[in-house]
Amino acid sequence: MSAVAYLDHNATSPLRPAAFDAMVEAMRVGGNPSSVHAAGRKARAIVDKARREVASLVGASPGETVFTSGGTEANNLALLGAGRRRVLVSAVEHDSVRRAAPRAETLPVDGEGVVDLGALEVALAASPEPALVSVMLANNETGVLQPIGEVVRLARAAGALVHCDAVQGAGKVPVDMRELGVDYLSVSAHKLGGPTGVGALIVRKAAPLVPDRRGGGQESNRRAGTENVAGIAGFAAAAQASGRVLDVVEMRDRLELALVQTARDARIYGANAPRLGNTTCISMPGVPAETQVMALDLAGVCISAGAACSSGKVQQSPVLTAMGVPAAEAASAIRVSLGWNSEAGDIERLITAWQSLYIRVTKSDISHTPSRARAA
Amino acid sequence: MSAVAYLDHNATSPLRPAAFDAMVEAMRVGGNPSSVHAAGRKARAIVDKARREVASLVGASPGETVFTSGGTEANNLALLGAGRRRVLVSAVEHDSVRRAAPRAETLPVDGEGVVDLGALEVALAASPEPALVSVMLANNETGVLQPIGEVVRLARAAGALVHCDAVQGAGKVPVDMRELGVDYLSVSAHKLGGPTGVGALIVRKAAPLVPDRRGGGQESNRRAGTENVAGIAGFAAAAQASGRVLDVVEMRDRLELALVQTARDARIYGANAPRLGNTTCISMPGVPAETQVMALDLAGVCISAGAACSSGKVQQSPVLTAMGVPAAEAASAIRVSLGWNSEAGDIERLITAWQSLYIRVTKSDISHTPSRARAA
Repeated sequence: MSAVAYLDHNATSPLRPAAFDAMVEAMRVGGNPSSVHAAGRKARAIVDKARREVASLVGASPGETVFTSGGTEANNLALLGAGRRRVLVSAVEHDSVRRAAPRAETLPVDGEGVVDLGALEVALAASPEPALVSVMLANNETGVLQPIGEVVRLARAAGALVHCDAVQGAGKVPVDMRELGVDYLSVSAHKLGGPTGVGALIVRKAAPLVPDRRGGGQESNRRAGTENVAGIAGFAAAAQASGRVLDVVEMRDRLELALVQTARDARIYGANAPRLGNTTCISMPGVPAETQVMALDLAGVCISAGAACSSGKVQQSPVLTAMGVPAAEAASAIRVSLGWNSEAGDIERLITAWQSLYIRVTKSDISHTPSRARAA
Repeated sequence: MSAVAYLDHNATSPLRPAAFDAMVEAMRVGGNPSSVHAAGRKARAIVDKARREVASLVGASPGETVFTSGGTEANNLALLGAGRRRVLVSAVEHDSVRRAAPRAETLPVDGEGVVDLGALEVALAASPEPALVSVMLANNETGVLQPIGEVVRLARAAGALVHCDAVQGAGKVPVDMRELGVDYLSVSAHKLGGPTGVGALIVRKAAPLVPDRRGGGQESNRRAGTENVAGIAGFAAAAQASGRVLDVVEMRDRLELALVQTARDARIYGANAPRLGNTTCISMPGVPAETQVMALDLAGVCISAGAACSSGKVQQSPVLTAMGVPAAEAASAIRVSLGWNSEAGDIERLITAWQSLYIRVTKSDISHTPSRARAA
């Protein structure tokens, strides 16, 4: 068992050894992929090879793959670059989708966090203006998978373009751009064991794209700026190593069983929907998520209270709110996410620490917010 | 002498050993700087330390430093984020400035490539609308330094904001945000021995900035997206190692002397202006730059024909055009740029190869474009 039980892979997954090695190799090469001389050609070869490997992860062609500085840039680029004024997004999209299109219409989700297809159909029919629909593959907080095939079928019938944020899905479940039938697909390296600061937007050949980084002609004029060569190399190596499926569901299920056996009133969000096998979003009623995160951190267990993106500030989860979870209950929900290096020992350590906290608070109420403390 | 004489540092400078080490260390840490647990805090500490070091390179405060995916993003962010509709740019700015503001008014330069301050004054007086003025510190093709102090004085008097693209200057000449007096300053890691794919926009505390990456609250809400932790660590280490001044002017001067002694009609662009000590932009009249780049590449010498950013395509240099250099002459200009690992042997190898090419073409005219061949 390692010094720390790292169970926050949906925030960032530690660098896979293959990605580490590929980055070191690229760092030794140097060179600007746009230079025509020997050093430039070596860097170009690294980027070209990586483009094939990343495209292959999601069943796309290399020419459809636009490397970006990460999932946020990929989502921003799709939402703005599709060129559609009318945008429909699900209520559980990541901030980098919702904030990229602040005037978008929001599609509700059901109590399990699954997008309401009836509402999508109604919204599409409400205006003749062709829309962009953005629905994620898997939710970052709950792991709930969305019915992208159905979304695409409805969108196509209405002449809409479809973007799918596959940042949390890629490398955990099989992702195939053609099967999904979407126009744009976002992927991030560091969610599947690559480095932070690199990702890709896959753009179907016939789909429109207005670039928003302007300068040199990199990425076939779709994204200006010298390529992050080492990051791209690490991304591709991680994509290859991830092998499309992350097989940790038995550990995750063992964890969930142990936690609900400890706290009978603990609730697992999205448990009745298809979801990623690596993610658990669970509440310890009455105990603020911050308290749980801190107590587990002291016990050497890294987990999170919802999305990590908001610089340490714990805010109410818009995902759980959209699912109709009461605010007081949502405030006690933590996210546990397993990854490529997770081991049974990590799970045991989490279970022990969580149980110990639960016993302490139910006996003495050390909850930081007594007003929300669990009754009885 | 190394296997290749790499003399294209203005395109990208090979990774400095200190940057390599800092990246490897960061890659071993993993973690998302926005996570509150132990792994997150370690990543946060790397980014915080790097922010102090990069700020220190340019005399700014850490809070003014916004990490980006490179110089292009920094330039794009400044040009669009300043929020000024009226934009004035010099005619020799990098594509990532000129294309970010395609409707900008262009300020002419003189025959040495120095911006026309009189024209700036006239342009500023021509409209009461407060402008953004963008003038680079050092030109990427010629190394010519711009009179930023004067630009700032004129701009301030007219209520204009000032952006300075210091991508080619930082790490080669001293850069001090306060002394320069600019509102925005762009820096790129890979031009000073850091990795590609990371840079920074320094934003003076009181200067406005509308973010264009939207999502999480990273970079104090000025640039969304999980930070490129390893890249940022390498950037900071390279900034520290660069020590603000690149001392290669003697080698550069030796090179220029040898080349003009070989070809009496060779012309060095910007030679009469203050310029970087590492850059030579020189023509071998009648011999297309592509021919020179290829011949030197075969001899193990990496140089370029102007900016590297346009995916291998050699286009007419807008910089030389703006300086009034005739098209046929500009087509024969190459750029040689020295850096932190340049050695006398690299220069000698370049001189020998260039001389050998010159003798061949003057004896037999193997020029690829006979129409442009040197008369007599």
